[in-house]
Amino acid sequence: MKIVIIGAGNVATHYAKAFHTLGHKITQVYNRTSANALALADVVSATAIDDLKVIDQTADLYIIAVSDSYISEVTLHLPSNLEGIVVHTSGATPLSILRKFKKHGVIYPPQSLSKTVETIYQKIPFAIEGSDQVTAEILLETLSAISEKSFICNTQQRLALHVSAVFSNNFSNMLYSIAKSILEKENLDFDIIRPIILETAEKAQKHDPKSVQTGPAIRKDQKTIDSHLDFLSYSNSLTEIYQTLTNFIIKSK
Amino acid sequence: MKIVIIGAGNVATHYAKAFHTLGHKITQVYNRTSANALALADVVSATAIDDLKVIDQTADLYIIAVSDSYISEVTLHLPSNLEGIVVHTSGATPLSILRKFKKHGVIYPPQSLSKTVETIYQKIPFAIEGSDQVTAEILLETLSAISEKSFICNTQQRLALHVSAVFSNNFSNMLYSIAKSILEKENLDFDIIRPIILETAEKAQKHDPKSVQTGPAIRKDQKTIDSHLDFLSYSNSLTEIYQTLTNFIIKSK
Repeated sequence: MKIVIIGAGNVATHYAKAFHTLGHKITQVYNRTSANALALADVVSATAIDDLKVIDQTADLYIIAVSDSYISEVTLHLPSNLEGIVVHTSGATPLSILRKFKKHGVIYPPQSLSKTVETIYQKIPFAIEGSDQVTAEILLETLSAISEKSFICNTQQRLALHVSAVFSNNFSNMLYSIAKSILEKENLDFDIIRPIILETAEKAQKHDPKSVQTGPAIRKDQKTIDSHLDFLSYSNSLTEIYQTLTNFIIKSK
Repeated sequence: MKIVIIGAGNVATHYAKAFHTLGHKITQVYNRTSANALALADVVSATAIDDLKVIDQTADLYIIAVSDSYISEVTLHLPSNLEGIVVHTSGATPLSILRKFKKHGVIYPPQSLSKTVETIYQKIPFAIEGSDQVTAEILLETLSAISEKSFICNTQQRLALHVSAVFSNNFSNMLYSIAKSILEKENLDFDIIRPIILETAEKAQKHDPKSVQTGPAIRKDQKTIDSHLDFLSYSNSLTEIYQTLTNFIIKSK
């Protein structure tokens, strides 16, 4: 496949490298800042461009991997008569933003692609949407080479996936930050609870999380809850979070 | 060491087995229900008792591993002239509840000991409190055989540890449950986000969670946040949790 990568940030870099490694030909890497385009293009033996007017119109796949708010602008500047499939990679952006292209779609991995951490693609199921069945099947086949767990979904399912990733990734990571701040307040090292963080996630790999829920909330242990709220009285935000989550656990028992 | 285990639930079972395996002599296992005492006593070659009046007064260590609300009752029925060290294993219960015993302490692992999952002790640091320095040192030496990461702390530090464990274990597990329910609402399998759950926890092993925070909140991506809130409009509780956690991330940036 001939692939054009639009964007040169984290997500674009991950896709460019993955497809390059699989033997696809990355023909161009676009970024409005040419130095950025060049840096990524070099790594995947592609041509760097900083103007969408000179885009390779013969590619089979165009991957728009830019920040969500910039997708519509990129779309506006791309020629509408592209024969290849045009996809974006955003969990929360509708498929219809790409409707000016004959064949379009979304490839969305429910995964956080941060700068500092290498991601292992084989484990990640890509959620795929296509403007028509054939397009969806082509995308599925292409992405299955990266992860065999990839699957076709609809817009509402992709949104559900994105929301659930926010809860299980963004929000739990934020809880880890809070835990770290609580320990540091008493001169304790974050290392002390790193094992329980990992163990909790490992437990969820094999169990229904609801069936392994522990702690004062699920036991309705009000005395312990009160002592925790007392401890947290130095922070209104932390008190509010503790209350909200505790009430939810108690209620959902 | 001669050890008496008071309790026969999850925590008592974990301690009884760990110390038995290390070569300590478990002399007695107490439970008010003799069948429960017997079941655990059998496994660790101990005598089962269902009456605290017949407790072995020559033991070196008494481990009170009962539910938090039952510790004071057990304490009341134990002879106050015990020569051995009497400890409880609760994160949120004060050391002073055991003050009638000459030597007393707390051994608290910030770890969730649920019925269904085997726990690997070597990774868990035990937080240790002692009524005096010598008692604390003895407990540290004893627990270090289970985990070399064990350490001596004070009551406020133990409370901080307990609260931080609630955030990083109880609450994040609850977020996994929510993510599962969101996926199931759209006929998607929890398996899809199991990899991101594990990856998030693995990331926290090496990084400061704050430095790897991703998602719409940290980007202040209000459009995505709104589409998520719209998706969650079927549940007031989930909307409240999403709002609370998102606001906190935005504020703490």
